[in-house]
Amino acid sequence: MQVVILLFERFTALDAVGPYDVLSRIPGTEVVFAAERAGPVGNEVGGLALTATATLADVPHPDVIVVPGGPGQTDHMTDGPVHRWLRAADGASTWTTSVCTGSLILAAAGLLTGRRATSHWLAMDQLAPLGAVPTGERVVTDGKYVTAAGVSAGIDMALELTSRIADATVAQAVQLGIEYDPRPPFAAGSPHAAPPEVVAVVQAYRNFILTGVH
Amino acid sequence: MQVVILLFERFTALDAVGPYDVLSRIPGTEVVFAAERAGPVGNEVGGLALTATATLADVPHPDVIVVPGGPGQTDHMTDGPVHRWLRAADGASTWTTSVCTGSLILAAAGLLTGRRATSHWLAMDQLAPLGAVPTGERVVTDGKYVTAAGVSAGIDMALELTSRIADATVAQAVQLGIEYDPRPPFAAGSPHAAPPEVVAVVQAYRNFILTGVH
Repeated sequence: MQVVILLFERFTALDAVGPYDVLSRIPGTEVVFAAERAGPVGNEVGGLALTATATLADVPHPDVIVVPGGPGQTDHMTDGPVHRWLRAADGASTWTTSVCTGSLILAAAGLLTGRRATSHWLAMDQLAPLGAVPTGERVVTDGKYVTAAGVSAGIDMALELTSRIADATVAQAVQLGIEYDPRPPFAAGSPHAAPPEVVAVVQAYRNFILTGVH
Repeated sequence: MQVVILLFERFTALDAVGPYDVLSRIPGTEVVFAAERAGPVGNEVGGLALTATATLADVPHPDVIVVPGGPGQTDHMTDGPVHRWLRAADGASTWTTSVCTGSLILAAAGLLTGRRATSHWLAMDQLAPLGAVPTGERVVTDGKYVTAAGVSAGIDMALELTSRIADATVAQAVQLGIEYDPRPPFAAGSPHAAPPEVVAVVQAYRNFILTGVH
């Protein structure tokens, strides 16, 4: 089984690496990082670069597509090589998935029309104008389309996907292998749980978080 | 504040990227990936490469040191450039930290002698022979030394560290920014919680998981 994780400049690293370190542990799975051009692809801060070992043309038929988010998402909201690859690859994929604002790219490419989906909580209001049906769940499965909420939700999404691709035993073994027994030091991971003053701080940086531009 | 994340061949990506995507969000923080040689550094599977933008010599005085784990840990258990850099850098660091089997490297370098520490649950028995005092907690703080359990525990560790480096509001804002409201689909993240047959599956691969060798 081939999993292709799409990379683009100014992606968020954990969006990609969370699912990577889950899905790469499924026996018989090859996970490939692919981008328009092969080579190092920088994240939104620029201090991190993951290597794309394939171009999009090299991987036309992935079994699983994973689209991360990050401020660079804003560069892929109109028709272009990424959308064309996504639509063609989606035609033969078993699963088409996203993390964080990656769902906005899928939706803009026309792949989530009329489908339930999620995104980073700060970007949730952008889904409906793109034709998707936003839900508040952390991981949303609608047919073969699986979307995850912000950044860290890609780990939960990938474990759920692992149980579908393989089975619950494999998914649990992967979870135990990466010791995913989360103990966040605060109850601040969602806008419903976080103290209002913390929500206000993050909302004040909304534009910067979503686009990288102050 | 400078955070240096040590990279070495056959590291586990999520061990490094979890803390990266937390600590890089602390205002005024520069996070640098450093290795013996600058350039792409491959993970244990080889399908992922993160770029080290600095050599160890380039970053002699980090404020925070983060040592990830992964099968390549086994290559850094004797005196050498990594141990020498760790000892020198630790002499001036504010925090010296690890994720997963990164604690074995810190301990082998002599930095955890007599200190409470943790590691991946499969490697916990290796801490005491290296002079550390193993504990079962997910994140262990002893003075300026903060060690985390396996792989995904680096996210919890980094959030806790953020609250010490900055304050609880910043830590919560970062947690909300990465939407860290974990919802693992199974209760299988620790050997105490996982079904016995799942623990047995992972233990059967113990050597491969820890060393990369079957």
